[in-house]
Amino acid sequence: MIPLEDLFFTNETAKRLYGQYAKDLPIIDYHCHLDPREIAENKVFDDLGEMWLARDHYKWRAMRTFGIPERLITGNASYYDKFLAFAGIFPKLAGNPLYIWCRLELGRYFGIDAPLDAANAHGIYTRAKARIDEQKLTPRSIIQLSHVDYIATTDDPVDDLRFHRMIQSDASFRTTVVPAFRPDKAMNAGKPGFADYIGRLSETSGIKIQSFHDLMDALEARLLFFKEHGSVITDHGLDNFYFEESSRDTRDAILGKAMAGETLTMREGRQYQTAFLLEAAKRYRRHGFVMQLHIGAYRDANSRMARLLGPDSGFDCIDGETPIRDLGRLLNTLHNADCLPKTILYPLNIHQHEPLAALAAAFCTDGRKAGVILGAPWWFNDQPFGIRQFFESTGQLYPLSLSMGMLTDSRSFLSYPRHEVFRRILCDYLGSLVERGEYASGEQGLIDIIEAVCYQNVREYLGIEARGIEAQCPQRGSRAGASHEG
Amino acid sequence: MIPLEDLFFTNETAKRLYGQYAKDLPIIDYHCHLDPREIAENKVFDDLGEMWLARDHYKWRAMRTFGIPERLITGNASYYDKFLAFAGIFPKLAGNPLYIWCRLELGRYFGIDAPLDAANAHGIYTRAKARIDEQKLTPRSIIQLSHVDYIATTDDPVDDLRFHRMIQSDASFRTTVVPAFRPDKAMNAGKPGFADYIGRLSETSGIKIQSFHDLMDALEARLLFFKEHGSVITDHGLDNFYFEESSRDTRDAILGKAMAGETLTMREGRQYQTAFLLEAAKRYRRHGFVMQLHIGAYRDANSRMARLLGPDSGFDCIDGETPIRDLGRLLNTLHNADCLPKTILYPLNIHQHEPLAALAAAFCTDGRKAGVILGAPWWFNDQPFGIRQFFESTGQLYPLSLSMGMLTDSRSFLSYPRHEVFRRILCDYLGSLVERGEYASGEQGLIDIIEAVCYQNVREYLGIEARGIEAQCPQRGSRAGASHEG
Amino acid sequence: MIPLEDLFFTNETAKRLYGQYAKDLPIIDYHCHLDPREIAENKVFDDLGEMWLARDHYKWRAMRTFGIPERLITGNASYYDKFLAFAGIFPKLAGNPLYIWCRLELGRYFGIDAPLDAANAHGIYTRAKARIDEQKLTPRSIIQLSHVDYIATTDDPVDDLRFHRMIQSDASFRTTVVPAFRPDKAMNAGKPGFADYIGRLSETSGIKIQSFHDLMDALEARLLFFKEHGSVITDHGLDNFYFEESSRDTRDAILGKAMAGETLTMREGRQYQTAFLLEAAKRYRRHGFVMQLHIGAYRDANSRMARLLGPDSGFDCIDGETPIRDLGRLLNTLHNADCLPKTILYPLNIHQHEPLAALAAAFCTDGRKAGVILGAPWWFNDQPFGIRQFFESTGQLYPLSLSMGMLTDSRSFLSYPRHEVFRRILCDYLGSLVERGEYASGEQGLIDIIEAVCYQNVREYLGIEARGIEAQCPQRGSRAGASHEG
Repeated sequence: MIPLEDLFFTNETAKRLYGQYAKDLPIIDYHCHLDPREIAENKVFDDLGEMWLARDHYKWRAMRTFGIPERLITGNASYYDKFLAFAGIFPKLAGNPLYIWCRLELGRYFGIDAPLDAANAHGIYTRAKARIDEQKLTPRSIIQLSHVDYIATTDDPVDDLRFHRMIQSDASFRTTVVPAFRPDKAMNAGKPGFADYIGRLSETSGIKIQSFHDLMDALEARLLFFKEHGSVITDHGLDNFYFEESSRDTRDAILGKAMAGETLTMREGRQYQTAFLLEAAKRYRRHGFVMQLHIGAYRDANSRMARLLGPDSGFDCIDGETPIRDLGRLLNTLHNADCLPKTILYPLNIHQHEPLAALAAAFCTDGRKAGVILGAPWWFNDQPFGIRQFFESTGQLYPLSLSMGMLTDSRSFLSYPRHEVFRRILCDYLGSLVERGEYASGEQGLIDIIEAVCYQNVREYLGIEARGIEAQCPQRGSRAGASHEG
Repeated sequence: MIPLEDLFFTNETAKRLYGQYAKDLPIIDYHCHLDPREIAENKVFDDLGEMWLARDHYKWRAMRTFGIPERLITGNASYYDKFLAFAGIFPKLAGNPLYIWCRLELGRYFGIDAPLDAANAHGIYTRAKARIDEQKLTPRSIIQLSHVDYIATTDDPVDDLRFHRMIQSDASFRTTVVPAFRPDKAMNAGKPGFADYIGRLSETSGIKIQSFHDLMDALEARLLFFKEHGSVITDHGLDNFYFEESSRDTRDAILGKAMAGETLTMREGRQYQTAFLLEAAKRYRRHGFVMQLHIGAYRDANSRMARLLGPDSGFDCIDGETPIRDLGRLLNTLHNADCLPKTILYPLNIHQHEPLAALAAAFCTDGRKAGVILGAPWWFNDQPFGIRQFFESTGQLYPLSLSMGMLTDSRSFLSYPRHEVFRRILCDYLGSLVERGEYASGEQGLIDIIEAVCYQNVREYLGIEARGIEAQCPQRGSRAGASHEG
Repeated sequence: MIPLEDLFFTNETAKRLYGQYAKDLPIIDYHCHLDPREIAENKVFDDLGEMWLARDHYKWRAMRTFGIPERLITGNASYYDKFLAFAGIFPKLAGNPLYIWCRLELGRYFGIDAPLDAANAHGIYTRAKARIDEQKLTPRSIIQLSHVDYIATTDDPVDDLRFHRMIQSDASFRTTVVPAFRPDKAMNAGKPGFADYIGRLSETSGIKIQSFHDLMDALEARLLFFKEHGSVITDHGLDNFYFEESSRDTRDAILGKAMAGETLTMREGRQYQTAFLLEAAKRYRRHGFVMQLHIGAYRDANSRMARLLGPDSGFDCIDGETPIRDLGRLLNTLHNADCLPKTILYPLNIHQHEPLAALAAAFCTDGRKAGVILGAPWWFNDQPFGIRQFFESTGQLYPLSLSMGMLTDSRSFLSYPRHEVFRRILCDYLGSLVERGEYASGEQGLIDIIEAVCYQNVREYLGIEARGIEAQCPQRGSRAGASHEG
């Protein structure tokens, strides 16, 4: 059995690069779905069943394909039984990221090396439980164990951010935790509950919303509130995006219609979303926020199950179509008006990586480094094949050394090994370039790229103060001095 | 020269896995275009020229790209001359699946190891002819030589299935041969000959067809007739699919128009096809049939040649566009009504593998294993690169261990080595996972996956009784006992 | 450090094949953007800064992503300073084709092996300048050094071709330099300046243009003028293409509207372009010209920068959408009328390689070898990943041995190593086929493929007389005799 330390490596250079330069870099997790309340309250976890299966729609999907009954997935079975059900399919997950993630999570947090299966499931469950109890494994202890410097959660503009304040006011917890501004509910005028939501936004912001402009003022007020809590990044789930211009009057009329609960036409929906993004982006630029666009999800494809279990339950898919030119018009309109904020694009269809990388590069101007850039392989692409493809193919179109590294995008506190997966594959890719003669700028060149991609780029991009790198990796100082001899 | 036994292997694990666990598994060929009459009549083949060149549009296409005149492809030249013409380009087919297929066919059925070329063409032709004569090579003898347990041919609902009856009534032929129900002629209302076809369907089914509902009743009658002949699977060639709802009246009106030979609008064509698939699928579910959807062909792109030589002559292409959301609406409508049969999706555009794999997983529910699944790489994707990509990329989104393995999709009795190609690449992929540390669940885990993918999954999925595996692979019993020591 | 001679090689066979059979083949560069005036005037270059940075939008894009100010990219800084700015990012270009290209250019033309960086930039600049001065490096000397047999530039129909005449009349310059006919300005009726352009075309051709038919006559006159100058190839930049039929009257009306400076509707634009291509193609076929179609660019996506710096300044992108069926209808209409010229398709979206390869094969008929074929990976795809993908994936659908090899598509005289990149990756791919047992037709089979792809196919396809191969590669004669022993 190949030791877990050699995971992914197809060349000796990779192994050396990872061990010496990538492994111990701290983590900046700039996009995730962790619940700030859980970090604030920091209660000791119950068991691995809950940690793994309470909210992980990746595991749910996989279990469903094997015909496991819903009772053992999201139903009222115990987490122990759910854990056993998952263990039963685990050896059949060859080639699936869950296999890698679970092995790393067992290894890194529970000291368990054996791959899970039906036979050892009870034993592993018990050992994990003991470890949780002995070490008082909590959200914060796992975050610290994982060398996480910085976390940006994903938050609604109407959130009062009280849990962020609680976390931030506790000086004993060294990891920075800040909110990210995700105004999807205000952006999707067609969805049920829209009028109610606008009411809450009005209340929270103290701004009466009677026009599209008022709406934007209200959001801007909340944006500044987020900024006071250290927020520097926003996020938008776009499914698909179609650029459709509109006049101010049209925008007001559409908003009125949506608030009255009337159904919008497809064109109106597009006009509203286009206007929303244009106006929001200007404010992001003005206040120094980064704009994230997650593009191309086909959500709740299975509507019966989505109704039963709610959104994000494993019934989302990948859209086939992403109109590049529409996205281009959005960026171009903002760029023409000198209002384009730093923008990170995340395509969900793996085959959109290349056209979006080329598009991003066309909007890097005016001396702004990586002004528009692709984010880490997202969701269905966050897996070994997707990450390799990202480096090998997209890197040809947009320098991979500018990449902002990995993020977990996760609801689970155990997901930090996704950074390890990314770093290992990065080192394997760089090693293969070296061994095929495609890179020859020496050890320092490689170190610079690895540190940039795994840590420094995102730090600079988000304007995060460096603080952890020396403190948390004491060996770094001495290693750096010797690095040219490697 | 690398021995043919090592074909594709990039790691030692692959070689071991293939030789010990994959090689001798029997074959279930659940989708092909073999002519049941030829199996029934079982006449000795003439020569390799006819076997290879009488109907193989893959070879025809390749020959045309090299500028070989049509006379030597589909024209009136002798099969010997056609064979020589093909031999002349053979050494130039590096990187094309024909090169692999032909080598394996020569090796497996004729004991010929040398790759074909102009110089050895006459000799190979002669040796193959001798072998055909000596061994009385017939459809049935090749099927048995290839360890084929089960074959589903592709048949029109109006077919009287008499050749299937002939085959099934011959107890000396151990391979199960059943029809598959492919109602394309009834599904494509716009095509010439539609009214005549509906007339034949009416006659065969004994149901007068005056409404869309009548049409469905007639098809259901034929479906049950197929079921009596052991049929468990259906098939549909969708080119592209656009979901378009319609009322019962509209459907009847469209059917009337089509039967009167009038041209349908694009919208009517889509409405008809949508209604057809919704109604047909309900009946498949009711009667326990699996539904296959072959999606995204751009047929007869070259209309002059298609007119000259007929369909399936090598003038079909790959459509660029496959509307994922339309297909999603089809599945969702059926799923909402609890009428979704087991469904196998085959996208023709290789870049649709990922979005369709994600879509398939979203409709695996209610404890039904692999309720919707991607089929083996189809047609233009049925080649080493396509198969590797299928495992590496699609496997990240839908567990590859659930895959139903290969099928030949072929008109030729010599195509069974396509299963060998698939199995070799599967083992190579699994071996590479093992050697990179990405799979560590041991020998039994690998055996389970290999046997599932190459044989057991499809057997279970189609409800085929296991019968061949022990009988045909006598070494399996003893090997299985020792498998944990490997 | 891996020596540059081993660049890309992952197997021993590759190294042998490249060194013995590919390396010394002469170059036919059948599509580039070199300025014939510069070849005619043949002035000694100034410095590497100018050679690299005066017109290379690949480098400009990369520099912009790193936040280098425009002054140091296209602005008024000195070429020395621009060179230093580029050197500063060079070690960060791992995985980008610029890294490979620049290293090969330094190695092949300046004898410099060290990869560029900030520390050695001044030294490299100085050594390169010395080499330029000592060796009097000029366009012609670089062309000859690079073993270039044949160059086709890209020229407007109204060009008087006087520089081509100057070059052709100089018997001391052995490389054939001919124009290619690129009528984009006449094909894009919607663009500003169209009426003026038609005026110039009328004047140059001596044909008064009052109808669409007149326009075609004028272009045909220019085509024949190009033919007198040895031209055999045409080119069209299609962005996207939508097939839309029209009557003769409609075409005339659209032309009238465009010449009056009126805005065309989208439909009119498509009708015009469709008619243009159909009529132009007929004339290409009649006069023995090859038709190149470059498909799927999304030009000037960043309109502010495109306005500032002009077209081809690094603000172009990849379109997501390419309607395969529209392109199919174009080919089919021409094929039905027996008017389809030899056609080379270049898709810009890497994921269109497969559908377009299948489409191309469907129009290879009537004994015409490679009648329609994919060109070398274009623009954003002209990089190691794109070329590997092209061989591995597209080769499964259209025999790679028919490929017409590489072209530079470049504005720079230093770009010939792009042929080296292509040849190395070709040999690496063939070597990997051999070492995995996927190709076994022996040394001569490999030699035939390598020589065909790197030189002979394009020579035959364009009807270029062989002249250089023996003269320029004197070792070839003796090597060929021994080749079967390899």
